[in-house]
Amino acid sequence: MRYIESNVEEYIEDLRSICGVPSVSAQNTGIDECVRTLADIMEDAGINVQVIPVRNGNPVIYGELRGGGTERCIGFYNHYDVQPPEPLDLWESPPFKPEVREGRIFARGVSDNKGNIISRIEAVKAVTKILGKPPINLKFIVEGEEEIGSPNLPVFVKEHMDILWADGYLWEGDGVDERNRPIVTLGAKGILYVELKARGAKRDVHSSMAPIVPNPAWRLVWALSSIKGPDEKIRVPGWYDDVVPPSDDEIRLIEEAPFEEEEEKRELGLKEYLLGLRGIESRKALYFSPTCNICGFDAGYKGLGSKTVLPSEAMVKVDFRLVEAQKPEDLINKLKRHLKEEGFSDIEIKSYGGYEAAKTPPKDPFVRRVVNILEETYGRKPVIKPTSAGTSPIYTIRNWMGIPVLSCGGVGYPGSNIHAPNENIRIVDLINSIKFIASLIINY
Amino acid sequence: MRYIESNVEEYIEDLRSICGVPSVSAQNTGIDECVRTLADIMEDAGINVQVIPVRNGNPVIYGELRGGGTERCIGFYNHYDVQPPEPLDLWESPPFKPEVREGRIFARGVSDNKGNIISRIEAVKAVTKILGKPPINLKFIVEGEEEIGSPNLPVFVKEHMDILWADGYLWEGDGVDERNRPIVTLGAKGILYVELKARGAKRDVHSSMAPIVPNPAWRLVWALSSIKGPDEKIRVPGWYDDVVPPSDDEIRLIEEAPFEEEEEKRELGLKEYLLGLRGIESRKALYFSPTCNICGFDAGYKGLGSKTVLPSEAMVKVDFRLVEAQKPEDLINKLKRHLKEEGFSDIEIKSYGGYEAAKTPPKDPFVRRVVNILEETYGRKPVIKPTSAGTSPIYTIRNWMGIPVLSCGGVGYPGSNIHAPNENIRIVDLINSIKFIASLIINY
Repeated sequence: MRYIESNVEEYIEDLRSICGVPSVSAQNTGIDECVRTLADIMEDAGINVQVIPVRNGNPVIYGELRGGGTERCIGFYNHYDVQPPEPLDLWESPPFKPEVREGRIFARGVSDNKGNIISRIEAVKAVTKILGKPPINLKFIVEGEEEIGSPNLPVFVKEHMDILWADGYLWEGDGVDERNRPIVTLGAKGILYVELKARGAKRDVHSSMAPIVPNPAWRLVWALSSIKGPDEKIRVPGWYDDVVPPSDDEIRLIEEAPFEEEEEKRELGLKEYLLGLRGIESRKALYFSPTCNICGFDAGYKGLGSKTVLPSEAMVKVDFRLVEAQKPEDLINKLKRHLKEEGFSDIEIKSYGGYEAAKTPPKDPFVRRVVNILEETYGRKPVIKPTSAGTSPIYTIRNWMGIPVLSCGGVGYPGSNIHAPNENIRIVDLINSIKFIASLIINY
Repeated sequence: MRYIESNVEEYIEDLRSICGVPSVSAQNTGIDECVRTLADIMEDAGINVQVIPVRNGNPVIYGELRGGGTERCIGFYNHYDVQPPEPLDLWESPPFKPEVREGRIFARGVSDNKGNIISRIEAVKAVTKILGKPPINLKFIVEGEEEIGSPNLPVFVKEHMDILWADGYLWEGDGVDERNRPIVTLGAKGILYVELKARGAKRDVHSSMAPIVPNPAWRLVWALSSIKGPDEKIRVPGWYDDVVPPSDDEIRLIEEAPFEEEEEKRELGLKEYLLGLRGIESRKALYFSPTCNICGFDAGYKGLGSKTVLPSEAMVKVDFRLVEAQKPEDLINKLKRHLKEEGFSDIEIKSYGGYEAAKTPPKDPFVRRVVNILEETYGRKPVIKPTSAGTSPIYTIRNWMGIPVLSCGGVGYPGSNIHAPNENIRIVDLINSIKFIASLIINY
């Protein structure tokens, strides 16, 4: 492990070369260059790399490294695409010119997710240097569309299940919390994202016409009210039918996880949480509740002052977070049926698709083994979350292939500013992350 | 009357000089120049002009012309401000360079409302030329803030009631319909315009926080649903308490007024009217129903594709049209109380103020006299509407001073494009309008 500490300059060099490429999937820049750069770095580490094209999408870099004679195998999921760097004027150094300052490395994507890619590759290099080759087999999926919702990952997994098998997968890589405790996440919620549109007259008209011309904004208001009321219960019949409640083990993990209630409220600018939730109840809701959230509402005149207009159309974007066993393709049908039955068949529903929720049980042997190694490396008890409150496409591996998946040992920390200006990681976290992955490969 | 026809060049010249000034109240341009130009034209016509300053607003041009010894007096209301000319690229000639083409005059404001001002002044000139001076007294209110909601007219009227007295007022001036029938309007609905705002976390947050962070867009959706349901009934307690239903005379006028149902639906792009209304029921609703209309709704992400965000704030603009005897200052209090009682005391309410509705009865002697002269001049039976479906500040004169008010004999026609590019009037309508006003002054 001392070997790892002595090679910091090399890690930073690799990070510089990959973070210097603006691989922004949302803006379709730098994809090919990033794929070439990363494939080279992986091959230099001895990994057999295949760049697998994706129809109408960014290629997946798939890597394999056969280890010492066992069938044991760990898989790693990462993504080489990054968030757009805007707003540029808030960056203290250019987002795609990585800069080292005060023990930290600044660049777009250095935490999410290129630092984690590099950490895993450097660990492979270190292990290979010491042992000749790793004692187990390793597989790498590095996709290029995570930041735009991984639209092609499900098809990729479906078409490549034969090569993707592993004992377990390490997902992107959580990091440490504000007290440097390593974080483990065992799952993710699902999601269904829809856009509802209502139309009235063929053009905006003067609002004096309101007694005879339908108002599409009102149509959406009433439709939304039929979907969820102020008690936060989703009123679409059958919405909760398939919900599997969290296990006792999962609830216990949430009860054990540290959480700074007053600090969070202060940071959010809230006097109290939704529905007056407090303490552990707020955490249970956060991690285990299905949601229905208005992401955006657009209708008519939004400028200063008064304008008397009856808008021609109105649009609302809504995301539903899903919990274990809810199926997006089933729920979109229930939503459509509900709107029809409530008299809203005039409303157009566009689905942006969805993810299932997915979780690996805390007692899964792969989880226990990885967590033990994590605790040894960091010298601290990990904070284990049974699921994220957010969403990621782990269901493709977890639910479809039945493989345990967890996320831990990454390079991030609470000040990483992911998705924001001045994204950064601490060099100390990078080294710990590499040590952990190397230890995992050696001791698994 | 032949005299009037022989002076067309002079009218067009006066129109050119006043329409050449971009007196856009919303953009605060050309106000002083327009006031000077118009005051000069009025003084040239022998009218005694006072430019009355308005605190924090545009001056009112007040004019008087004493006639031949009677106490009889007709008042005229107009406004010298115009709508913004945008979008400029849709104009076939520059909006503030009046141009004559194919018997029409094109310019911003030529119909709304400068053509009507000029028509009234030219009529005064013609009468004075022929009779030496008019047989009755005339008063002129020309304000400069109609297009931004006449915020200062009520105070102006309150402070100048002593000089504003008249037997009756002619308001801005309706024109003719698609079959060249002169239109008479005897009133206007009132209005209450409010903006509702809800706030959640102090910044937009990731939508995975939806189980614990209040969503301001949802707050507005539920608040709006409590205000009006899909039956179009306003649910605020007491909202309809003061409503005075239309008289039999007024209903009869609506029943008699021509109306092209299928053509209107086609023009609006509607298969059917709101609530499936048909025929005369749609007209009764249009002219006699209070409304609650969403003018605009703004929250969160409104761009292309999906973004999972929980917005920090949300805003909705709502106009309520009011009918006879509803009081905006009473209704805003009822609305505030309602929202509080329904659990929405978190929602901020900003009122942009309101107008009362106002109507003059069809049998009022001033109305009958004016309508008779109108029918004589135009040689056609006027179409009389007991009220507009829209709003204008006539209540200041009608309700506060008890003076009959009506609008008719103006320069507009259905193709006038008011508030739109290529605003225009037909020269023939301008001449008819001048003839009518002259005849009214002579024969009243």
